[in-house]
Amino acid sequence: MRIVDIIEKKKNGEALTDNEIQEMITSLIDGSLPDYQLSAFLMAVVFQGLNERETLTLTKAMRDSGDTMDLSKIKGIKVDKHSSGGVGDKTTLVVAPLVAALNVPVAKMSGRGLGHTGGTIDKLESIPGFQVNISEEDFISQVNRMGFALASQTSNLAPADKKIYAMRDVTATVQQRSLIASSIMSKKLASGSDAIVLDVKCGDGAFMKDVKEARSLAETMVKLGNGAGKETVALITNMDEPLGTYVGNNLEVIEAIEALHGHGEKRFMEVVYALGAQMLLVGKQAKTKEEAYEKMHRAISDGSAFEKFKEFVRSQGGDISYIENPEKFPKAKLVYEVKSISSGYVKKIDTEAVGETVMRLGGGRATKEDVIDLTVGMKICKKVGDAVSTGETLAVLYANTKEQLKAAEQEVLASYHISNEKVECIPMILDEITE
Amino acid sequence: MRIVDIIEKKKNGEALTDNEIQEMITSLIDGSLPDYQLSAFLMAVVFQGLNERETLTLTKAMRDSGDTMDLSKIKGIKVDKHSSGGVGDKTTLVVAPLVAALNVPVAKMSGRGLGHTGGTIDKLESIPGFQVNISEEDFISQVNRMGFALASQTSNLAPADKKIYAMRDVTATVQQRSLIASSIMSKKLASGSDAIVLDVKCGDGAFMKDVKEARSLAETMVKLGNGAGKETVALITNMDEPLGTYVGNNLEVIEAIEALHGHGEKRFMEVVYALGAQMLLVGKQAKTKEEAYEKMHRAISDGSAFEKFKEFVRSQGGDISYIENPEKFPKAKLVYEVKSISSGYVKKIDTEAVGETVMRLGGGRATKEDVIDLTVGMKICKKVGDAVSTGETLAVLYANTKEQLKAAEQEVLASYHISNEKVECIPMILDEITE
Repeated sequence: MRIVDIIEKKKNGEALTDNEIQEMITSLIDGSLPDYQLSAFLMAVVFQGLNERETLTLTKAMRDSGDTMDLSKIKGIKVDKHSSGGVGDKTTLVVAPLVAALNVPVAKMSGRGLGHTGGTIDKLESIPGFQVNISEEDFISQVNRMGFALASQTSNLAPADKKIYAMRDVTATVQQRSLIASSIMSKKLASGSDAIVLDVKCGDGAFMKDVKEARSLAETMVKLGNGAGKETVALITNMDEPLGTYVGNNLEVIEAIEALHGHGEKRFMEVVYALGAQMLLVGKQAKTKEEAYEKMHRAISDGSAFEKFKEFVRSQGGDISYIENPEKFPKAKLVYEVKSISSGYVKKIDTEAVGETVMRLGGGRATKEDVIDLTVGMKICKKVGDAVSTGETLAVLYANTKEQLKAAEQEVLASYHISNEKVECIPMILDEITE
Repeated sequence: MRIVDIIEKKKNGEALTDNEIQEMITSLIDGSLPDYQLSAFLMAVVFQGLNERETLTLTKAMRDSGDTMDLSKIKGIKVDKHSSGGVGDKTTLVVAPLVAALNVPVAKMSGRGLGHTGGTIDKLESIPGFQVNISEEDFISQVNRMGFALASQTSNLAPADKKIYAMRDVTATVQQRSLIASSIMSKKLASGSDAIVLDVKCGDGAFMKDVKEARSLAETMVKLGNGAGKETVALITNMDEPLGTYVGNNLEVIEAIEALHGHGEKRFMEVVYALGAQMLLVGKQAKTKEEAYEKMHRAISDGSAFEKFKEFVRSQGGDISYIENPEKFPKAKLVYEVKSISSGYVKKIDTEAVGETVMRLGGGRATKEDVIDLTVGMKICKKVGDAVSTGETLAVLYANTKEQLKAAEQEVLASYHISNEKVECIPMILDEITE
């Protein structure tokens, strides 16, 4: 079938055959698919969607479009955890060593941050010496030895997804559920883990702004994972305020260390434990959630989770003196407290705006080429539901230039919505999708 | 505004500003608009449409994207006539000399045929010596001298339309009313006539298959023409059977000559007169339709329309001995009568299929590079509503190879639908849109 006829078919709302979808991906990879046909096809998909079978076929075709990791040499049920991206999301830094300490092997591929959300790799690279470019052999032997390794995604993992994503970005075709789900899952499935726990962020600071959309995306991804033979579960978690206390690269590493010592911010730990419980369940290291929570609390209190993190950092070349003495991390030159100009209760924090403020302070990338300032960021002192008086500190800014501070202060004040009435907090775990 | 934001806006169903549309066309022409953004935009338009203002702005922007003809040196109200393309449509060959003989100057740009529909230029080129590549100066002086000239479209007329059309063709974005209308009208408006009469073909052999669609397209084009300051009217005419008796290049020229002698097939002449009346009305050479019909009948019966055609052919280098003695035209080697295999009434002729049969006989182009055989074609002996007996001739094929004939016979039999019940003919003029 000619590509133009495949586009026509999708435009008319018909379902494509598996062969037709495979043909699109094959011609994309062999270079015979012109960009303009790909983009027209994607726009047709935005309007007509893909059904479950089509989405699964697309996902598998993208998974198989390049290298796939073979993790069969790692013993046990390897569990991957993926977050759809949020503000202040340092969950991986805590939950991965935590479950690894409880015998769930975590072999994780991760990416860098772009836009208002940070990337786990950027955060880890604030530890001097830490390496993310490790060979497949070292990666596998590290997981076998100590249960956890984290590497940057190899460039030939799901290259069809890479090409399609680059095209979606410049043709206004990013926001489509099947395309989002197949993009995420093709990479996860190519990464070789046996089970996948998805953290679908939902709210102002996330890609998905409302629960209905987030649930629909999560359900699609869970079906894709299970349909491709990997046990997959998803949690929908709240991103209507920054997660935890800090936003910014080394600030979040310090917060993660604190959390591993048992001093994690309450709502952040709710998310950590909920995800960790799912990882223990799919990894067959707990039979019930209760057992999982009990084990995790113990691994925090007895220090084994923290030790696992230290071992992980050491294995990947990081200087563990920083982990042992977080005050060694370099600090931003300027520390500035943003004071409230009104009294009441925090009703809402514009979370995407907070992410963008930190990005503009130098803590994130507006374009892929930007170099990150690892020291800058923000401490969130008042969270949703908190009472606040005029003059009280809402947030603390960490910056390296005065000009940036001034703009950032205005942005923080604009991001905080203060109400006269008491505000109920919405729960952190909005839903759990297991099939 | 960035192009991706313009695409996003249209994707979301918002109306674009005039500046945004102009920016698309400007960047298309200066080469800065990537193909993939154009195609994504076009697909978004397929789903979200363009409103009246947007369509007019797009049409004007395309009109102004290249050369525009200046016909101000031609005296009188220059009237252009455009057909949306049909099978056996030799209307221009008859109506243009007819109204020119009645003092309506016709300065016509025309195109070549592609697919199942033939092109006026291809038909005229079956007259030995006939030239369509004439200079602007000669074109203008010929219309001033004798009232009618026909040239092939200059390559820089509405180049934005040319690029957009080429993209639509390969991205399944051809079928969208605003895009079709703006494509046609941008070229017509750039061609410089003062008034435009549109013949929107409707039916199995036309681009528009049903009256509702055709009416909607016609209304859009009439609004565009008037909105751009040119009096524009449209007729919707029947294309549920081939127009007239012959399909094929020199066969249609011979039929046109016969029609100018007063021996035109009845339904074909209905279309000729209806279009001619509109041309006389907008060209201010008749005050009423009755007056127009009376004048046209006279111009046929007194031979002035035929003389005008001869003068036109001579002016453009054609050998008028062929016009005077049509039997001089070269003939196809093989003439084959296709006999009916059943009795009854012709209920329907698959007109697009007839066009494709003639194309495969060599009388049309499947791709732009194909060379046309000017002698081949088909005579339609039985038309919709006609009674037919088994063994009676349905159509006559004119071909140059036996192999083609065999396939063509099967195709003709398959194109004719014979019913036991008497069949009512639908009228030739389905609607008239004047504002």
